[in-house]
Amino acid sequence: MSAAPNAVTVALLGGGTVGAQVARLLEANAADLAARVGAPLELVGVAVRDAARPREGVPQALLTDDTAGLAGRGADIVVEVMGGIEPARSLILAAMAAGSSVVTANKALLAADGATLYRAAAENGVDLYFEASVAGAIPLLRPLRESLAGDRVLKVLGIVNGTTNFILTKMDEEGADYGAALAEAQALGYAEADPTADVGGLDAAAKAAILAELAFHTRVTSEDVSCEGITEVTAFDVQAARDMGFVIKLLAVAESTGDGGGVIVRVHPAMVPRDHPLASVRDAFNAVFVEAESAGQMMFYGRGAGGAPTASAVLGDVVAAARNRVSGGRGPGESTYADLEVRSIDDAMTRYYVNLDVADRPGVLAAIAQAFADEGVSIQVVRQDGHGDDAGLIVRTHVASDGALRRTVERLRTLDAVKQVLGVMRVEGEPGT
Amino acid sequence: MSAAPNAVTVALLGGGTVGAQVARLLEANAADLAARVGAPLELVGVAVRDAARPREGVPQALLTDDTAGLAGRGADIVVEVMGGIEPARSLILAAMAAGSSVVTANKALLAADGATLYRAAAENGVDLYFEASVAGAIPLLRPLRESLAGDRVLKVLGIVNGTTNFILTKMDEEGADYGAALAEAQALGYAEADPTADVGGLDAAAKAAILAELAFHTRVTSEDVSCEGITEVTAFDVQAARDMGFVIKLLAVAESTGDGGGVIVRVHPAMVPRDHPLASVRDAFNAVFVEAESAGQMMFYGRGAGGAPTASAVLGDVVAAARNRVSGGRGPGESTYADLEVRSIDDAMTRYYVNLDVADRPGVLAAIAQAFADEGVSIQVVRQDGHGDDAGLIVRTHVASDGALRRTVERLRTLDAVKQVLGVMRVEGEPGT
Repeated sequence: MSAAPNAVTVALLGGGTVGAQVARLLEANAADLAARVGAPLELVGVAVRDAARPREGVPQALLTDDTAGLAGRGADIVVEVMGGIEPARSLILAAMAAGSSVVTANKALLAADGATLYRAAAENGVDLYFEASVAGAIPLLRPLRESLAGDRVLKVLGIVNGTTNFILTKMDEEGADYGAALAEAQALGYAEADPTADVGGLDAAAKAAILAELAFHTRVTSEDVSCEGITEVTAFDVQAARDMGFVIKLLAVAESTGDGGGVIVRVHPAMVPRDHPLASVRDAFNAVFVEAESAGQMMFYGRGAGGAPTASAVLGDVVAAARNRVSGGRGPGESTYADLEVRSIDDAMTRYYVNLDVADRPGVLAAIAQAFADEGVSIQVVRQDGHGDDAGLIVRTHVASDGALRRTVERLRTLDAVKQVLGVMRVEGEPGT
Repeated sequence: MSAAPNAVTVALLGGGTVGAQVARLLEANAADLAARVGAPLELVGVAVRDAARPREGVPQALLTDDTAGLAGRGADIVVEVMGGIEPARSLILAAMAAGSSVVTANKALLAADGATLYRAAAENGVDLYFEASVAGAIPLLRPLRESLAGDRVLKVLGIVNGTTNFILTKMDEEGADYGAALAEAQALGYAEADPTADVGGLDAAAKAAILAELAFHTRVTSEDVSCEGITEVTAFDVQAARDMGFVIKLLAVAESTGDGGGVIVRVHPAMVPRDHPLASVRDAFNAVFVEAESAGQMMFYGRGAGGAPTASAVLGDVVAAARNRVSGGRGPGESTYADLEVRSIDDAMTRYYVNLDVADRPGVLAAIAQAFADEGVSIQVVRQDGHGDDAGLIVRTHVASDGALRRTVERLRTLDAVKQVLGVMRVEGEPGT
C-alpha cells in the first residue's frame, strides 16, 4: 500500500450509488476529515464488478474487480456497501481477520446474523460500525449504542420504511385508496415495481431486528419479528382513524416485556394519536421513538434513504473508526450478553381497534361486549352507526395481551350478530401503553 | 485508591439532584454497565459541601468535602455536576492534568470557555464528554461530534429551553397572555421565581454557543450570541401567528453564512410553520433540528431537563469514557480548527413578520410598501383589516438580510402613516430559508 506514512487507509467494497458518494465525499471533504480525525484518510481501492468502466470522481487506478483481495489486504478500514448476505459476510469476516475495522450499511446481513459480526469484531479487536443500516442518515444506532449505554431501554417504536410512510401519508391526507397511493409512490420512484419487501413489512422487520438486538443486547434476527404489512389497510380504516383523532403508520416495535425477562419485536400497521410526535412524520421521512428508564421519551427524525444521506452516515462511521486507529483505541463493542427470551407477539400488551359490520337489532351490542369480556378485554370506546338492516360498529379496547385480543376477534367472527369483521388494527402511542 | 484491579474508577464532583441520580444508577445498573464497558465501574468518592450529611444510596465513607483532592487524585473518570464557571473550570483542568477523563454537564462553563477545555483534553490525552450540557437526555452532541463528522453542518435550529416552550405552548393553545402563562409555569415549577435567565433567552444562548462551537468547529461563546427573549411576545402576536398557520417558538439558531466563511448564532422568538417538525414540540420538551449538506434535515427530540434524564446523559458519557480506558483509546477530540468568523445577526438571511397600526386612508399602503422597497426587502403577504380610523396591517416578507429588515422597521417607525409598530418577529423554517 502506497499510503502516506500517517494516513488512515480506506478500502471500499462496492461502487454503486452509496459507494460513489462515499468516494466523492472522501475527496471533497478531505481537509475537514483530516482535521477531525487527526490524520488524512486515504482511499486505497474501490472494488467493483467491472473495473474497466470509469466512475466519476474515482481515479481509474483505484478500481479493482478483485474484491476478496481488497477486503483481505489489511486496510485500516474496510467499507462494505455491496449489500446482500453473501459474499458480504465472508468479505467482512476476512477483513476483520486481517485486522481491518469495518463500516457497513448492510441491513440484510446485520438482521440475519449481526451477532456473528459482533463476535468477530471482538475476537479480532477491531471496530464494527453500521449506522447506515437503519434509517439512513438519522443518527440512531450511535445514540442507542453509546448515549443510552448507561440507561435501560424499555421500548423502541419506529417509522423505518419511507415507502410505506409515503403511501399511508397519501391515504391519510388525500383520501387515496391503497392501490392509488402505491401507484403514485411507484411513479415517483419511492416504491419499486415489485413493492413486496416494503409494503409487506419485510424491510421494516430487518431494521426492527437490528434495533432490538442493540437496544436489548439480545440476539434478534428478522425471523424473530412478527410481521404484517400495509396491504390490507383500507381507505375506510384511514378515515375511521382520522375521525377518532388517529393516523395509521407502519410501526416497527421492539419492547421489553413487563417482567424484564423477554423481548418482543413486531412490525404492523397501527393507529397513532395525532398529537404523538410520530404522527407528524410525513411522506418518505423516517423517525424512531425511544423510551428509556431514566432518559424518558425521545425521538430521532430524518431522511431514511438516499445516496447522499446514507453516505453521510457511512462517513461518520469511517471518521469514528479512523479516530480509534489514530488514538489506538476501539469503539463500542456489541454483544448479546443479556440473552433475553424473544417472546411471541401474543404476549405483547397492546390495544385494538375493531371495525364490525353487525346486524342492527336488540341484543347485538350485548353479545359483542360479552365476546370481549370472555377474553378479559376491557372496552374503551364504542361507536355505532345504523344504516338500514346493518350497523357499523367500531370498538377500541383498553390494554390487553395481543393473544387475548386476537382470540376476541376470532370469537367475534363466529357470532351470528357479526356479519363481517371489516378491520382490525393495533393502537400504539396512547398514554399508558 | 482501593479499587478492584481492573475496575474503572469514577470520582463524582457534586451531590445535588443529578449527582445523586448518577450515584444511584451506577449502583442499580452495575451489572449491565460492567457488561457494556468490559470492566466494572467503581465509584471512589463523591465531593459535597457537607460530608457529614448522609445521602440516600451513597455510602457515607465515599462522601468528602475535599473537592480539589478528589478531582486531582487521578481517578479514571471525573464527573463534574457542580455547575458554575469557577471552581468547576479549575477542578476540571486539574483532573485532566492528573490524567483523568472528564464528563461534565456544565452548560455555563462550556459556553463561556469550551475551547480551553477542548485544548486541555487534547494536551493531556484524555476524554472530554458533555452530552448533558445541552438538551438534557437528548443524544445530540454525540451525533454532532461523531455521526455527522463526515458531513458539513449548514444550520442548527433548536428549541432548547423548556421553560419558554412551556409558556409559549400555553399562549398558543389556551390563548393565555405572557404574564398568566409565566405564572402557571412558576406554579408548576417549570420557571424559577426569577425567570430572567430563561425568558430573557440567556439559557438558550449558552446552549446555542455550545452547539455552534461543535457544529462549526469554531470558538463561539455566549457573548457572541445575538439574544432576544420572549418577554415582548403578545397574545396578539400568537393569535396572528395562528391565523397565518404558524406557531411562535423561542429558537436557538446557529448557521453558516452563504459564503461558508462565517457563522451566525442567534436566539430569538420566531414564527414557525405549523407543519414544521419543531412546531409540534410542546410544553417543556426540547428538540433540535439539524441540516447537513449530505444527510439533509434531521431532528432530535426529548426531555431537556430533569435529574433522571440528565443523569442518563452523564452515564452514557461515563460508559464511553470508560470503554476508552479499557481499550486504551480516546473519544473524539474537539478543536476550533475551522476558525470561522462569527458575524453579526445583521448578516443573517431571515424573514420578518411586521404588525402595524396604520391610518386608514388612501396612499398608506403605498408608503409602507415603499419603505420595504427602499431597503430592498420583498413583501410576501399583506393582510389589512380596517377598524374605524385605524387599520391593522400585517406584513410577511421574503428572505432578506436581517440588517435590511431591521432598517425597514426603523423606517416604518418614522412614517406618518404608521401610528405604531405593534410587533416584529422573525419567521423561520419555511421552505427556502
